[in-house]
This record gives sequence, C-alpha cells and structure tokens, in this order.
Amino acid sequence: MPQQRSEETRQGILQAALDSFSRQGYDAASVAEICALAGVSKGAFYYHFPTKQGLFLALIEDWLKNLDRRLQQAQISADRVPTALLMMSGELEQIFTQAEGRLGMFLEFWRQASRDPQVWALLISPYRRYQDWFAGLIETGIREGSLRQIDPQVASRLLVATAVGMLLQGLLEPQGTDWPATTRGSLELLLQGLEMERS
Amino acid sequence: MPQQRSEETRQGILQAALDSFSRQGYDAASVAEICALAGVSKGAFYYHFPTKQGLFLALIEDWLKNLDRRLQQAQISADRVPTALLMMSGELEQIFTQAEGRLGMFLEFWRQASRDPQVWALLISPYRRYQDWFAGLIETGIREGSLRQIDPQVASRLLVATAVGMLLQGLLEPQGTDWPATTRGSLELLLQGLEMERS
Repeated sequence: MPQQRSEETRQGILQAALDSFSRQGYDAASVAEICALAGVSKGAFYYHFPTKQGLFLALIEDWLKNLDRRLQQAQISADRVPTALLMMSGELEQIFTQAEGRLGMFLEFWRQASRDPQVWALLISPYRRYQDWFAGLIETGIREGSLRQIDPQVASRLLVATAVGMLLQGLLEPQGTDWPATTRGSLELLLQGLEMERS
Repeated sequence: MPQQRSEETRQGILQAALDSFSRQGYDAASVAEICALAGVSKGAFYYHFPTKQGLFLALIEDWLKNLDRRLQQAQISADRVPTALLMMSGELEQIFTQAEGRLGMFLEFWRQASRDPQVWALLISPYRRYQDWFAGLIETGIREGSLRQIDPQVASRLLVATAVGMLLQGLLEPQGTDWPATTRGSLELLLQGLEMERS
C-alpha cells in the first residue's frame, strides 16, 4: 500500500528531525543529515516537506493536533466542567512523556516567533484557540452552576499560563519532581478557587 | 568619581547588549558591535566582562536580583501571607514593563540551558530558590492560619509555573490583554483555592 508507506516515510522524517533538532539545535541540523538519519532520499524529503522550516512547523502542528484530540476527548467524556478539567490534567501524564526531548523544539519555536512575524502568527493562533476554548468551557461551567461567577477570560489565561509554565519547568528539570502528580495537585488547588461548591 | 563612572560604563554595556541580543539574537551579536553601541573600547568591555556569555549571564543575574528585591520588599511590608502574595502580583506591573524586549534574552537563556550543563545549573538554581522561597512563605501562611493545609511544594510550583507562563504569554503577545490586571486577577483566583477563609 503506497499511501501507508508514504505516511511511514513522513513519520520517519519527522522523528529524525525531532532527534536532530533536539541534539544539535535547529540551525545546525541539515536536511542532508535528517535524510540520512531517516534513511530516505532528498527527493522523498522534498515530496513531503518544502523546506527545513516547513518540516519544523509540521512537527509543532502534529504535536498540537494530538493535544487537541486529548482535550476534546476529556470534554466529551465528562458530565461536568470541573470533572473535564481534572480529566485533562490526567491526560498531562502522556503529554509530559511525549514532550520529553522536545524542549529544544518548543524553545526554537518561541525564538523564531519572537523574530519572524509569520512564525509568530503560527504560534499565537493555537495560543488564542486554547484561550478561547478554555474560556468557553468556563462559561459552560458557570451556566451549569458548577463554577463561580469568575471572569472566563482571566481564568482561561490562568489555565493556559499554568499549563505552559508547568510544561516548561518539567522539561527543564524532568527529575525535579513527579510532574504529572504536581500538575494534577495544582489543578485541584486551582479548582478550589473556581468551583461553586467545595468538595 | 571613577567608581561611579565604572558602574555607568557597565550599565551602558548591559543596555547595549540587551538591545543587540533582542534585535538580532545572541549568536549574531558581536562584542565589537556591543562596544560600538555602548560607545566603549574593547578594553573597557573586557575589564567588566570576560566573554559575551559572561555578559549575557550578568544580564540575567541583574534581572533576577531586581526581582528578588521586589519580592522580599513585598514580604516585609505585608502582615499576612495572602496580602504578601497580592502585593507581589502588584509588583508584576513593573516586572512586565522591565521584561518588555527581553523575550529574546529569556528564550536564549532557556535554549543555552537545554544544551549546556553549566548554563542549565545557572538557570535551575534561581528556579529552585523561588520554589523553596514560595514553599516557605506558604508554610508560614499555614502556620499563621491564613492558608489551608495545602501541600507547600505543589502550591509553590503552581505559583512559579503561573508566573513563568504569564510572563511568557505576556512577552509573546504584549497587546493581547492587560497583562498586569490579568495576572492580578489570576492570583486572586488562585488565592481562593489556597486561603483558609474566603473573602
């Protein structure tokens, strides 16, 4: 099945790029080296990705798509918003595992975004999407009576900031503590401030 | 007064380096260019800083020292821990203003830390210091009866993660919202979860 092989090739290039970017950084990594690591020809590379930056952005996009799937799954499975938020923190264990070795990738993304308006737009769009999505979730919680009358925009930015801050700390010091447990404990503390009735 | 002039020279070099690193990035910035921007000789530069990296680390250190001073001031002025925490969020307005244009610097620090064990140690040590410091503050709050019986380590990591996440979001999208107000509102939400008695 050529289509399946093509997807395998694409995944192989993505994995090789992730290894290469993490080990020596984005600037030093070359398309030739990524091809050698993945065991593919340059022709196969350029069939899937227009440039090294296109490959880099595809890595980010794949990671975000996976995150979206997990968050939506948690929202569908839970009957109340506080339960959904707790389930999302449960998903973080896998997000942390997946993120390991990706610190360089995230930092490279932020660094490029701080200089290049096109990359900035690509970074800011998922940020805004998550902010809007969590704000909507919080509005639902207020309507269903499970959350207090808090400012959905502020609470949403707090959730996103906490997630980003935890991820960054966890990536910088993976052995520093049990990050999934700390993240779950943090969300429980946060929920004490957001919930209508305290458990 | 030669000592005063020497300190002025040092500050001038630091400011020129900050401009240069922010505009074109750490790698592209050269000592020659920083000297030209600051209007000092290479001799004067190397009198103050051993290398470009030494200069970069001095920039980080100065920023952290200033932050330390503000946090300690807030702790001394407040009679109860929740008040101290709110005062610290009040200080954030100035921290945000100071941080403007420093996104490149922070990202460079994280990037170097993700590759160089020596830089990593320099990054992780203030992280740990803030974590311990906030954990101690929270223990005091529990003892004085102003905070619930929460896990000081978890709550401390939550506070540090929130601060780092807010700072990063604020630097990436300065016009996105009123960041000092959002940070203050977030801390008020957080305190609802931490405090013994709700206001």
